[in-house]
Amino acid sequence: MTSLQLLPITGIGEVKPGDILAQLILDAARSDGGPGILDGDVVVVTQKVVSKAEGRLVAIDPTLEADHKRLVLDEAVRVVRRRVSPRGELLITETRHGFVCANSGVDLSNVEHGYAALLPLDCDRSARRIRDGLRGRGSVTVGVIVSDTFGRAWRKGLTDVAIGTAGVAAVNDLRGTKDAQGRVLEVTEVCIADELAGAADLVMGKATGICAAIVRGVNPDWLRESSVAAEVIRLPMDDLFR
Amino acid sequence: MTSLQLLPITGIGEVKPGDILAQLILDAARSDGGPGILDGDVVVVTQKVVSKAEGRLVAIDPTLEADHKRLVLDEAVRVVRRRVSPRGELLITETRHGFVCANSGVDLSNVEHGYAALLPLDCDRSARRIRDGLRGRGSVTVGVIVSDTFGRAWRKGLTDVAIGTAGVAAVNDLRGTKDAQGRVLEVTEVCIADELAGAADLVMGKATGICAAIVRGVNPDWLRESSVAAEVIRLPMDDLFR
Repeated sequence: MTSLQLLPITGIGEVKPGDILAQLILDAARSDGGPGILDGDVVVVTQKVVSKAEGRLVAIDPTLEADHKRLVLDEAVRVVRRRVSPRGELLITETRHGFVCANSGVDLSNVEHGYAALLPLDCDRSARRIRDGLRGRGSVTVGVIVSDTFGRAWRKGLTDVAIGTAGVAAVNDLRGTKDAQGRVLEVTEVCIADELAGAADLVMGKATGICAAIVRGVNPDWLRESSVAAEVIRLPMDDLFR
Repeated sequence: MTSLQLLPITGIGEVKPGDILAQLILDAARSDGGPGILDGDVVVVTQKVVSKAEGRLVAIDPTLEADHKRLVLDEAVRVVRRRVSPRGELLITETRHGFVCANSGVDLSNVEHGYAALLPLDCDRSARRIRDGLRGRGSVTVGVIVSDTFGRAWRKGLTDVAIGTAGVAAVNDLRGTKDAQGRVLEVTEVCIADELAGAADLVMGKATGICAAIVRGVNPDWLRESSVAAEVIRLPMDDLFR
């Protein structure tokens, strides 16, 4: 195993509907002092700017809680849990993509006042579009992960996870691999896309305005066709917690 | 934000009950070609070697499924879910620590044949012991995370998470922080210990025998007293999924 580097891409600035994210990422990464982009890099891009570039913004009256809640329910196929607390109503929903998260991923922070950002319609496709753009415009072959910040059952605090992937494994299947004692591994499927997304968040933060980062040095075997929808989403019938 | 490095510590070798992990880590990290250990590093150590060093090994007849199951139930305070499949019975349990995970964290892989490894009794304390050992024997002040590989609800694949911390924040509380537009952030509590543990797994892998890694370059503000038990474990009464 060799070392990895986590490199923030600074200077992308405000993203607007219709912007070509791949070009913005290339320009920022290749500006003076930037990390560049190399073949074999994994580029992690946060959902917020992907949604903005794709025009997934909806006008909302942020003083009307009902307006927000209607949006959340519009984006959901199922309300998994609901809790009313002094901080307001929390809805844990299942989105059309199959993600289980707070408020269907509808987000008001780091969005222009009066607007809410919805999740991309097809997050794997969003990742492929960025990967193809980086290849076409920048002549680099990379993996791309679109990340978002989700809570989880049983543990406090949020972490960044992968909601879309292109060109980098979502889940690495180690079934049949032997451990150091020659015994078949019990732990067989590692969601490296979530580990990569969380790692990238460590150099992005929530209040910095940094919306993309590079993981450099990953195992070349990890760079393959992939899909969060196919590899990570657990179907309701296979899920013990829905 | 500056860049981070993920550096595997190779050459620790087989760990036996009574071994001083801090010394093994120091010797391996400071050997020729090793990454060394610097003030401000975060050292991530996998649960398996911590359990071995602490003698948390139990003789087991691995051909008797009942033997394994008895151990799992002994380590549990509650069976959260149970599923019988062609691959055997899966128990999702709550451990005495409050972790919700498969089989109470009882593990047979990467353990000598005829033994199972149990989780450390107090994982934060295990992390503190390593941190104090590195300070006393190596004169370095670092954060330490003990990591384990857990599944989760709703998403396939496993990821490494923090089960114990010392000297590095488990959850970073951003409440009151403003976003780039000057709005108060909605995402307020980030479990950086889990993101650090998952990041470190990217340079360790499951079949390599690498049991420790360094995250170098973390924000010095993250290096503070901490506890997974106090900051990450969600109490059953606050949990919508138990």
